[in-house]
Amino acid sequence: MARYRLTIEYDGRPFVGWQRQENGPSVQAALEDAITKFCGESVTVFAAGRTDAGVHALGQVVHIDIVRRTSPDEIQGALNFHLRPDPVSVLAAEEADPEFHARFDAKARHYLYRIINRRAPLTVDAGLAWRVPVPLDVAAMQAGADLLLGKHDFTTFRSVQCQAKSPVKTLDQFDFTQNGVVIEARLEARSFLHHQVRSMIGTLRLVGEGRWRVEDVKRALDARDRTALGLNAPPDGLYLTRVDY
Amino acid sequence: MARYRLTIEYDGRPFVGWQRQENGPSVQAALEDAITKFCGESVTVFAAGRTDAGVHALGQVVHIDIVRRTSPDEIQGALNFHLRPDPVSVLAAEEADPEFHARFDAKARHYLYRIINRRAPLTVDAGLAWRVPVPLDVAAMQAGADLLLGKHDFTTFRSVQCQAKSPVKTLDQFDFTQNGVVIEARLEARSFLHHQVRSMIGTLRLVGEGRWRVEDVKRALDARDRTALGLNAPPDGLYLTRVDY
Repeated sequence: MARYRLTIEYDGRPFVGWQRQENGPSVQAALEDAITKFCGESVTVFAAGRTDAGVHALGQVVHIDIVRRTSPDEIQGALNFHLRPDPVSVLAAEEADPEFHARFDAKARHYLYRIINRRAPLTVDAGLAWRVPVPLDVAAMQAGADLLLGKHDFTTFRSVQCQAKSPVKTLDQFDFTQNGVVIEARLEARSFLHHQVRSMIGTLRLVGEGRWRVEDVKRALDARDRTALGLNAPPDGLYLTRVDY
Repeated sequence: MARYRLTIEYDGRPFVGWQRQENGPSVQAALEDAITKFCGESVTVFAAGRTDAGVHALGQVVHIDIVRRTSPDEIQGALNFHLRPDPVSVLAAEEADPEFHARFDAKARHYLYRIINRRAPLTVDAGLAWRVPVPLDVAAMQAGADLLLGKHDFTTFRSVQCQAKSPVKTLDQFDFTQNGVVIEARLEARSFLHHQVRSMIGTLRLVGEGRWRVEDVKRALDARDRTALGLNAPPDGLYLTRVDY
């Protein structure tokens, strides 16, 4: 038996999320079914990040154990063949240390959030970005984001379903860039709470449109209370882009 | 009656192309139907570029005549409302000179072609880019593109269905850029022949993978013969991005 590490890309739209669930197709089930079709083995796929319904990944990392003698190239080709027509793609495969764990060994997770700031509905970007029709002040959003950097109790920005033991996390990067109507935020942390990125982005939208002052972000953070949250952004614009080990 | 100029974005995937046809949904029909729903008038929409099935637009320009007294803002809002759920969006609307013609007054058309150069199947970019699994030498592709710049008889790169009077066109820009696995080509000309961009891109792919030498592009151009064409690229990666007047 050997352990393999795979880098995965997927379009989150048709899935109930990463995790296998009774109520619909998941990315995990798509991968596990493809592995069974390839080698006949029933395996559990462990992922670095358990993304929600509609959330995309450009660089999710998973590990699997396979008994059959094979190679990373064969695994990549066979899984991509058996994954069709699901929008899940194996970007890279490599043999890993038998002790490697995609979730527990991750040192940092990187997310991208894409906003398209315009009145007109989306077409090619539908489901792949959050359309915000009111003009956003990105400098104010960045000032709000800066208040969230560092180690904090992020209870305000945490889903009631969050299973993390502690609400204390350290946010290492939260940078906004703007290119025409496209506003992108890049975030990095060792780990995030459930809904943390979407809760922070939704709250900063209120700052961007002037309904909240920058200081209100600090007030919401200090409240350590989910009801102090401004707004939860939709999954459409969220991408897990990279995991560092 | 007043004439209006609209800037339109669309995802070409569900359409048989720009032009109204018997055999399926077209962007033109979607817009004309939305106008009828808005003001009860039967209008013909004239577009700068008659894009093919599966080809996208980020900045198509059209003109329409409307009898009902209205405003550009009302037209944009009403059409975007009635266009749902079709992936067609009115980005901008303005009143135009009664003599303005979206097709005949266009001074330049700009296209983007997106290639994703990787082995793994596409997910979020499926239908929105051309996946080329073999490594491409972008510098060689640029050298081939440079040979196509300027005024030429582009018969080799012209569809047999092309209705243009002359195969002579002037290509003013053909620039490749590369960012990781994403290769983008930007093209500009007063006008293009039917399938010209896709034929040129397909041919340069052969150069990029080393099956054709750069000089073979010149040979194909000089042949003025459709059978000298290397390859026609799929519509997935093609976007009409801008029209200049």
